[in-house]
This record gives sequence, C-alpha cells and structure tokens, in this order.
Amino acid sequence: MQKSSSNSSLGPGGLDLSQAFFKPIQSVAPPSATSRRTKVSIVGAGNVGMAIAQTILTQDLVDELALVDAKPDMLRGEMLDLQHAAAFLPRTRILASTDYSVTECSDLCIVTAGARQMPGESRLGLVQRNVALFRSIIPPLAKFSPDSVILIVSNPVDVLTYVAWKLSGFPPNRVIGSGTNLDTSRFQFLLADHLDVNAQDVQAYIVGEHGDSSVALWSSISVGGVPILSFLDKHQIPYEKQMLEGIHEKVVGGAYEVINLKGYTSWAIGYSVASLARCITRDQRRIHPVSVLARGFYGIKDEDIFLSLPVQLGRSGVVGVANVCMTDEEAGRLRASAEAILEVQSQLGI
Amino acid sequence: MQKSSSNSSLGPGGLDLSQAFFKPIQSVAPPSATSRRTKVSIVGAGNVGMAIAQTILTQDLVDELALVDAKPDMLRGEMLDLQHAAAFLPRTRILASTDYSVTECSDLCIVTAGARQMPGESRLGLVQRNVALFRSIIPPLAKFSPDSVILIVSNPVDVLTYVAWKLSGFPPNRVIGSGTNLDTSRFQFLLADHLDVNAQDVQAYIVGEHGDSSVALWSSISVGGVPILSFLDKHQIPYEKQMLEGIHEKVVGGAYEVINLKGYTSWAIGYSVASLARCITRDQRRIHPVSVLARGFYGIKDEDIFLSLPVQLGRSGVVGVANVCMTDEEAGRLRASAEAILEVQSQLGI
Amino acid sequence: MQKSSSNSSLGPGGLDLSQAFFKPIQSVAPPSATSRRTKVSIVGAGNVGMAIAQTILTQDLVDELALVDAKPDMLRGEMLDLQHAAAFLPRTRILASTDYSVTECSDLCIVTAGARQMPGESRLGLVQRNVALFRSIIPPLAKFSPDSVILIVSNPVDVLTYVAWKLSGFPPNRVIGSGTNLDTSRFQFLLADHLDVNAQDVQAYIVGEHGDSSVALWSSISVGGVPILSFLDKHQIPYEKQMLEGIHEKVVGGAYEVINLKGYTSWAIGYSVASLARCITRDQRRIHPVSVLARGFYGIKDEDIFLSLPVQLGRSGVVGVANVCMTDEEAGRLRASAEAILEVQSQLGI
Amino acid sequence: MQKSSSNSSLGPGGLDLSQAFFKPIQSVAPPSATSRRTKVSIVGAGNVGMAIAQTILTQDLVDELALVDAKPDMLRGEMLDLQHAAAFLPRTRILASTDYSVTECSDLCIVTAGARQMPGESRLGLVQRNVALFRSIIPPLAKFSPDSVILIVSNPVDVLTYVAWKLSGFPPNRVIGSGTNLDTSRFQFLLADHLDVNAQDVQAYIVGEHGDSSVALWSSISVGGVPILSFLDKHQIPYEKQMLEGIHEKVVGGAYEVINLKGYTSWAIGYSVASLARCITRDQRRIHPVSVLARGFYGIKDEDIFLSLPVQLGRSGVVGVANVCMTDEEAGRLRASAEAILEVQSQLGI
Repeated sequence: MQKSSSNSSLGPGGLDLSQAFFKPIQSVAPPSATSRRTKVSIVGAGNVGMAIAQTILTQDLVDELALVDAKPDMLRGEMLDLQHAAAFLPRTRILASTDYSVTECSDLCIVTAGARQMPGESRLGLVQRNVALFRSIIPPLAKFSPDSVILIVSNPVDVLTYVAWKLSGFPPNRVIGSGTNLDTSRFQFLLADHLDVNAQDVQAYIVGEHGDSSVALWSSISVGGVPILSFLDKHQIPYEKQMLEGIHEKVVGGAYEVINLKGYTSWAIGYSVASLARCITRDQRRIHPVSVLARGFYGIKDEDIFLSLPVQLGRSGVVGVANVCMTDEEAGRLRASAEAILEVQSQLGI
Repeated sequence: MQKSSSNSSLGPGGLDLSQAFFKPIQSVAPPSATSRRTKVSIVGAGNVGMAIAQTILTQDLVDELALVDAKPDMLRGEMLDLQHAAAFLPRTRILASTDYSVTECSDLCIVTAGARQMPGESRLGLVQRNVALFRSIIPPLAKFSPDSVILIVSNPVDVLTYVAWKLSGFPPNRVIGSGTNLDTSRFQFLLADHLDVNAQDVQAYIVGEHGDSSVALWSSISVGGVPILSFLDKHQIPYEKQMLEGIHEKVVGGAYEVINLKGYTSWAIGYSVASLARCITRDQRRIHPVSVLARGFYGIKDEDIFLSLPVQLGRSGVVGVANVCMTDEEAGRLRASAEAILEVQSQLGI
Repeated sequence: MQKSSSNSSLGPGGLDLSQAFFKPIQSVAPPSATSRRTKVSIVGAGNVGMAIAQTILTQDLVDELALVDAKPDMLRGEMLDLQHAAAFLPRTRILASTDYSVTECSDLCIVTAGARQMPGESRLGLVQRNVALFRSIIPPLAKFSPDSVILIVSNPVDVLTYVAWKLSGFPPNRVIGSGTNLDTSRFQFLLADHLDVNAQDVQAYIVGEHGDSSVALWSSISVGGVPILSFLDKHQIPYEKQMLEGIHEKVVGGAYEVINLKGYTSWAIGYSVASLARCITRDQRRIHPVSVLARGFYGIKDEDIFLSLPVQLGRSGVVGVANVCMTDEEAGRLRASAEAILEVQSQLGI
Repeated sequence: MQKSSSNSSLGPGGLDLSQAFFKPIQSVAPPSATSRRTKVSIVGAGNVGMAIAQTILTQDLVDELALVDAKPDMLRGEMLDLQHAAAFLPRTRILASTDYSVTECSDLCIVTAGARQMPGESRLGLVQRNVALFRSIIPPLAKFSPDSVILIVSNPVDVLTYVAWKLSGFPPNRVIGSGTNLDTSRFQFLLADHLDVNAQDVQAYIVGEHGDSSVALWSSISVGGVPILSFLDKHQIPYEKQMLEGIHEKVVGGAYEVINLKGYTSWAIGYSVASLARCITRDQRRIHPVSVLARGFYGIKDEDIFLSLPVQLGRSGVVGVANVCMTDEEAGRLRASAEAILEVQSQLGI
C-alpha cells in the first residue's frame, strides 16, 4: 500500500524519519508519475462491489484500486479493512472516496451501485430509479477516465449497460455488462458436476438476457473436445432433453436460491467479474459471454440493444463477437430475449 | 468442485451420461480414497469465517474445504455461492453441514463461531457463554480430526484458545489462536506507510494479549535489515517515542475503527488467517505471532496461559517459540498482559 | 528449503545457535514426520528434467522435490542452483542423489532419462538400450514408492511407458506417458495463432503415437464453444483441409524444428509435464491426452499397447478414458498408429 | 500468444477463417495500440537469459517479452520452445529478433550478453572486450526505449553497469546491475539452513562488489525480527565469528561451486532477476541490494562508481538508497570493494 493520507496525523516526525532512512542518488529529479500503472475503479462498496474488490486484490491484478460509494463511513471502513492486510499482499494503492476524482485515469470502471426493488414497485419503476442514479455515476466516470472500459454489474444489467453506453458517449466496444458470464459459470459447474469432470474442461454458454429469458446454447456444449449433442446422437443415448432443461432451470434459479438462503449473492459474482477484469486489463483476448451492443448479430436488426453474446475481450474492451452456430430454436429464443429487453428499454426515454 | 449431492435431483440420466462419457481402463479396481488430500474445516460461516474461506479458495490452498454452522439455510447459501464459481477456480471439493462429521480428517480446523456481547453483559459473562458454545464445538472437531491443528479466531481469542486446548485434549503444539497476527499486520502497514516502504520489508511484532493490553516490540522493528531503534540512536534522531506510541494506539484502535465504520471486520482477518493456514498446511516454517501456550517463556512461570509470541509454524502446528530479545519495559508489559488474561481465565472453572 | 546436509561443515555451532533461537513449548514430543506432504521425484537431470523441476518449483506444486541422475557432479550443481533461490520461493525441500532411496514415498515419479540415438544405430537398437536402462530405473522407483504414479517422458514414449508398466508391476491406471500432451499444446497454439484467439479457449486433441504417426482429431476442435468443422460446414467455407493438414504437419515438425535450431527441446515439455504433475498431485480431474493402456478402446482389441488418448487424470492416475467421437478416417489412423507401436514392442521380448 | 509471423505460411485461408469467426461490433474503429502493456526485453538468449525469460513467463509478469541475440537460429528455437507452451500459460506476446527494433517501448531492458574469458586473457582484457560489445547493445536499447530501466546482469556486473550508464545517457536512477541480489539470496539460504528457518524470514545483506570483495553486513542480519548480533551478545553466546565467516565464504564460493559442477549458473540468477523485474514493473518499492551509482554514500566521495547497496526499487528504477548502519569494519570493507572496482574502471577510457 502506498503512503495514504492517514499518516498526516503522525506529525512531521514521519517525514524526517523517512527522509533519513532513504536518500536519493546523485542529483536525480524525482521520478515522474508514470502512466503504466494498471488501475481499476469500483462504484458501489456493497457486498458485490467488495467481493469484486477483494478478489481483484488477492489475484494481484492491479497497481491501484479505487472505491466510490455514497456512504463515507462504510466506505472508509472497507478501505481500512483491505489496507490492514498489506503485509499479506503485494503492494497495491487502495483509494476510497465519495468523490469521483479518485477514479481518475482508470483502465476499467466497474459499476455495482443500484437501487433495490421496493415493495409494490414495478420493474419499470425500479429501472427508472436506476437510470436516475446512473445519471450521477456514468458522466463523472467517463469524464475522469475517458479512455477506460466501463463494465456494468448492476441489475437489470442489459438495460443498464445500454443506459451507461448512452450516458457515457463511449464507443460501444468500451461499454459492456457482466451479463450471463456468471450464469455460464453456474451452467458449467452444474454440467461438470453432472458429468463428474473439472468445470474448466466444460465449454458451454448461456447467452441473451441475464435473467429469466436467458438462452442455454445446448449446441455449444463441449466437454474435453467432445460436442455433447453429437455424442448423445452417435451413441444413441436418448436426448436427455428433460435433464438438460433441468440444468438450465437450476441456472436460472441459482441466483434466486442463493438470495433466498443468504440474502444476497457475492462470492461467485466477485470471481466472475474479477475474471473479466483480468481478461481486459491483461489483454487476454479470451471469450466470455457478456452484455454487448448486439445490433446486427443473430437476426437482431435495427435496434440498439445490449444482451449477452460470446465476446472476445481485451484491453480495448470488445475485440469481436464470436460467430456461434445456433439452432433455429436457440436463435428464436435469443430474439425473444431481445424483445423482452427492448420492451423495457423503449419506455426509458433515453 | 466434485460431484455434490445436488445432482441427485437430476435423475438417473446423469449417471448414464457420465458412465458413457468416461470408461475405466482394463480391469482396474476403482481408485481407493487417498489420504494425501489437504483439508481445512471452518466452524462459523459469518463474515469472518466466509472471508477466510474465500481467501483460502482463491489462493488454492486446499483440496477440500468444509464449512460448519448452526444456521442451515445461510450455510447452504454460502456453499452454493462459492460452488457457482467453479469455472473460475481450481477444482476444490466444498462441503457444508450443520453436522461435524463433514469435518472428518481435516488437517486444520479453524473456529470463528462465537457469541456477541449483549447489552449490559459483563465481559466475563460473554466469555462464559462462549465457553458453553465451545463445549459443543471442540470435542466433535477433536473426535473427527484427532491429528489436526486447531486454530481459534473467536474472541477473546487468548482465553478461548486455552479453553479449546483443555476441551480438545490435544498436545499444546496443535492448538493455537490467531492472536496478534492481524495486529502485527496492521502495525507493519502503519510503519510501512509512515516510512513509505513495502509492508513486506517491515519486520515488527505485536505480542501478548490480542486486544487493549497488546505489547508492541519496538526493539524488533527492522526495515530492510535496518533495526530502527539503533538507527535512530546512531543518527541522533530524537526517539520519536510519541510517534511510535501513536502508531501502536492506531493498531489497538484499528479493529474498533473498522467495526465502528462498517459494523464488523472481515477482509484483513481473512487474509491473516489464510496466511496461517498456508504456513501450516504447506509446512512453511515461517514465524508468525500467534496465541500459544506460554508457560516457561519470558518469565511466565507456572501458569497455563495462552498469549501471542513469535512462533515458527509448520504442519504439526507449533515448531518452536522464537527467543526474541525484549527490553525490560517490554517484558514487563508482557507479564501485565498475561495477568489480564489470567484473571479472566481463573474464573472459568475449566 | 529445509536443513540440508550442507551445514554439517559449519560445525556444532550451528546447532547451538538454532537451539538457542527457538525453544519448544512445554513437554511436547518432537512432531512426527507427517505423511501429508506432496513429493515428486524426477529421474534424469538433463535439459528436460531440469525444465520440469524448475517449472514445478516456480508453480509451488510440491513440498518435496527429489532429483536422481547417474552424474553426481552435474546433479549436485543443479540442486545447489535451485536451492540458492530459496529466498525467492516458497519453502520446498530439494533433494538430489544418485541413489533411488532419495525418491522414497513419492506421489509421482517422472522419468526423463534415456539414451540418445548413436550414429548408424537402428531405432530398435535405441529402444533396446533404453529398455536396459529402464531395468535399472523402474524397479527401484516402484520399490521406494509403491503407491506412486509413474509418468514416462523419455522417448519413444509410448513403447517405454509399456516397458515401465511391465517392469513396475503397477496397475495400468498408475503408469502413463507424457505422450501427445505437448503435441496437443503445439496444435492449440498454432490454431489459436491462426484464429487470433487465446490458446486456452481452444479445445483440440492430437492422439495416438507421440511422433510421426500422431493423429489430429479435427472433429474435436472447438473454439470458445464453436465446433470448427460444423462451423465451416454451416458457413459454407471450403473445408480448408490443406490448411488444417498444414497445421498438423507443423505440429509433427515442431519438435524437430526446435531441435534443429537450439539442439534440444526443454521449456515447452517442462510446462507440459508440470501441468500433468499439477493435475495428478492436486487431483484436478482434468482431461489430458497422455499415453495410456489402450486395450479395448477405439477398436484396439487384444493387445497391451500404450498410446495417447484423452484421459481424465487425478491423484490415482488415470480416472477414465474419454469417449471421443472419431470419424472413420481418424479411427483408421489411430489403428495405424497402434500398429506402428506394436511392431517395435513385439521385438522387445519383455 | 498473439498472432506471430509464423502463420503467414498458412496461406490466405487463415485470415478468412478468423474473419468469419469473429465479427466487430457496429462501426467501431479498430482498437488503437495501447501504451498500457508491460514489456520486458532480454538481450542474450543463453542459459542465464533464458532462465530469466522462462521465470518471468511462468510468473506472468509481462504482456510482451522480446528476446535479442546475435545467433538467429538458436534464438528462433528458444522463441518457438516458449511459444509452444501457450496452452499452459496466460497469453503473452513473445518476440525474438537479431534486430533491436523488437525491443521498442520496453519498460525494462535486461542485458545478459557478454564475452567469456579466453585462456590467457587478463581480466582487464575481458572487460575491454565486453565494453566493445556494450557499444553495440546499449545505444540501440536506449534509442528504442528511451524511458526504460536498464538492468545489467553480464559480468563483471558493477563495471559493466557503469559502462551501460555512460553509453545510455540515462539518469542514474534508471541504470542498475543485478549485483549482489543473488549473493544475498545465497546468504539468506545458508543462514536459514543453519538456523532451520524459512529463508523468507531472514533479512541480511551482501553489499559492495559482486564477487570476491563482496561485503557481508553481519549487523544487518535479522531473523523474524531478532537482530542476530544483539541476540548472540545478550545470550552470551560466543560470537561464532568463524562460523559466520564460513557462511560468507560459502556465498562467495557458491557461484564457482555451481559452475564447477554443472558448467554455468542459471536457475538462481533467473529467479533473482525475475524478482527485480517484478519489483520494477509492478512498482513494488521493495528493498533489494543491486548495483547503483554509489557516489556520496558510505564515504564514497567523488567517484562515479557502481556497486551494490540496499536500494528501494520501483517503476522509475531507483527510488532511494537505504541508510544501513554499518560497523566501521564493514564500511572499511565496502570502501576497499569500491577501490577494486575503480581500479578496473579507470583503465577503460570511457
């Protein structure tokens, strides 16, 4: 951790000792601030934001981590709690403020802040309150980090990623939503559990809306190089359609189940978003299903809507959208998913 | 993640597909369960227990992780939330149950469960309630993992480590408390922040009771191989005693400050305990200040009390206690710290 | 690094200081040797063996690493060169000896030793010399680590894995060869390079003999969940057969090219074998193409031959063989590959 | 690994398939080259250079790694051998060329190239040949990466670091030599082995010339916060001077011993330089003993000589030199070490 403002209270003695302890070499100008550091900012220091922050720290992905939240006390408590672990971690500068200037020069801005549904509130009402919130979040982020990638985690993630894109003025490759990246992880876990293999050997995607209308791409499932649908066909194993649908239902229900049991989700979304942060900041070019401007893909024609597709991600955000083969049924479901999003979006007036 | 019981609901189709997909080689007996796996169990799935669990998972320290808590719903929610991240992590078997049999054959048992102080309750009253709680925790842990190391994190940690030692029947090298390991990290962070160095270059210890009577060993502070007290002396820099005392006060107040701000501490204790878990399970033999049976050290004579000393830790728990040089003032404070612990302990009737 | 024998020359003073520095706690028996440590032994400390050893060390996979070689001086030089890095690595006990007793209680034994082809020597002559060498390597390994997995890297790897299986008396799940695991990595790299994606998003296998008759499973290629052959078909892209064959040729020629340029291969085989070591010692259950007893798979009937198939690996070695779908052409090539191996094997008289 | 030039031989089909597979999103300009990537270049692809390259790759420190050597075949062989491991590593762009333009925009340039002593050649003769070599290495490095840090590993490292400083025209904070960083690691290993502790708990420095006149700072040895000299004094343990001197002799002899046994050193220097690379590229601000412009420190008055002192390193190179307390004897030895370097340096005419 770098020198924080906290030591100002230690009096001038601090500076004396530090100056006595290290001396600069012969007539060298103080090193200029370098632009090579990697910085991630997170807006919203609740359970999700903090799980993301802690996972990013543990995985040593950044040189600087900035947290923004509207609640200054809680925010300072979270910052101190992370800073106190300095002796167990590589040196990372951890900043926290209610002021967005703390996010200056970020490579990646992650937004987890969002209103929660109130009793009796319509889904549209919730979205409209979040749009209002985003008007106070996105413009300052875009102003302080005009070259950054913005990654939306707040829900409903697809509509809010569209809102963030509009409010930021960024090109569409630099605004994405966490989308079905986590749904896909749940899908891979359940398939791996079912087949008793390592989840990292399972390729399989959930695309479309993050939520009830998400689309499981059965035709994309490949385990250790074996396409499952062809395999079932070749070995004349009955299609197990019911079983596969059961897995998809468990994926869709997964978030609800965790929320019912512990009150919120945090760890899995933390790992999921940290994996996106790593892919983007280290330019890994891996393929992740994330919410992206989908105009022109898979029969989505003239509408500017965001939904999850398999996307190659790098330091500039979206590098390209993978040309996945869908069955007609899958493509139909994707278009239905798009319709569901569009209906909400069209009422926002943005 | 290994096959969990969750897939039983998927019906017999699951087994068929898995069996079709992999075939065993020529007439081989099914592989016997091997005893080489590394297993850690955590009792108490609150904020502290889960921060420990998540950090251990991210750092890939174990092959199997078991969680025990009295609240089955919350516990299942936490387990699922971790399991859903399988695609982002190395394969680790994650178990959770209200029944201690899930902890069988652990290498390390970490106890974070504990009652919280109630309004008007005396400190002794709180301890006594926790002793009662430990009567239901420690004996089953010891029964299911008779060769494990038990690590107590619950507060007041020194007294409860003594209680766990008594209730377990374990030799004293296999019962320790997290003690001042975190206080020491906070101390190193604040010194590093003051001197503008990396906290990992700061050697410095807080010993004694974890809490208000902890003892900062000024004579142990060494930064990059420079003993600070000798340095100040040699360079005729005034002792900065006030500054150093100020840092110790900030350490003692650190936990209170975080609790006041965010309601509890979690991240730093998570990293702190994960570092102990790594040192023990991987037999790293590093020196950590942890709560240990202190009889015979530093003038503590005939009493069986636990408090923090710099200890070399390995797979068998305590390998040895470091023979740190204390000034007379420091040794005096340590004995005072011991007295404070003994006073509580003597009233427990254990 | 643990106490090595090297400090015996430091005289008895060493023990005094160490004993003064650490003291055991109250009347505790010295900790018994625990069986939970992870140990890997490597036979052959040439370029390949040392690249494996160094990668395993850097990736912190083991608690104990033993090296065996017939050349004591070179072996001690390599051991010291690794030990001198102790301050930069987690604590690992590094042992080296010409005597196989140093490998006692290994979880995994890796054999890289092997004779090199002499001018004018027939391939069969080379194999027969290596069989003679294995008679001095495999029985002592099996004796000192009767529960270990044996992993053969020496060439010709498929025949020598068969020889090691016969000489060890082990069940077939505990004897494997590195086989086409590296060829597969080269295949994935070239495909990823061609498609400009991350190699970790490419699933694709080379199976059969490690060498000229290896079989590329075009039907197994899946990139980010997209089966490439179906994709080409669907998008009516001409089959690019020539291009794909060109990639396979580059894979087959890859090792020769590196050997021609730098004289040997080391780094890639080091990473490849370290990945197998990780999968086995940490029970990761991932699918790797390795050389395995193939009787009964893919039309290989009554012969005990070893060749590479996609195998799920865990702590007990082979967990199962994946039931990959091959085209008739691929299956035909695999059987031809088996014939090539069988021809050599049948002349060995083992 | 990124698209290498190697695929040009695959014909135009490659581009077609890649273009069919990924599509850009709506009318986005191709992402501009970003300056945020981390790049390290290594000059000299011999045993030392390749051990450094491989350790940096395994530890995932950079986004781009460039190798330069005068031997194109060997160089291409090493590059391919690393690239073939792509499937086992995070994506890193690996470049190799005999032309220095490949090093453009490096954050750190590491020089391992150097002539070897010829039979009958004087030490001065060797240095003069290396100076001539550096005239062809340093100016192009400085030209293509004018803001980089240059790290010299070639021997004699102190004199050659001075030469590199002169030839580069860089400010002195951006030119360092690996110096006694490795000697210090050997020192810590031997002390840790003697005391049976983890080498990472030992703080101790070797400073001065890298070689026979190096200076062990006994007064800097601190183990787990215990200054060893005070400890011996306090416990009235006889000074063990002979033992400590024996350890220093083993450190000085360590490199010779390894060279005599295996012919060269590689692994330990690889880890040592990788640790410096990490500290610099990730701005870790840790203290390492490296060769640095020593004018004005410890009684070295008016001469521009480089020798090793404990230095705080960050992204701008040297942040400051630690004000270590030396005994008069240690300071005298350091000045003698400086004289030895100066004598060679004064004859170079640079």
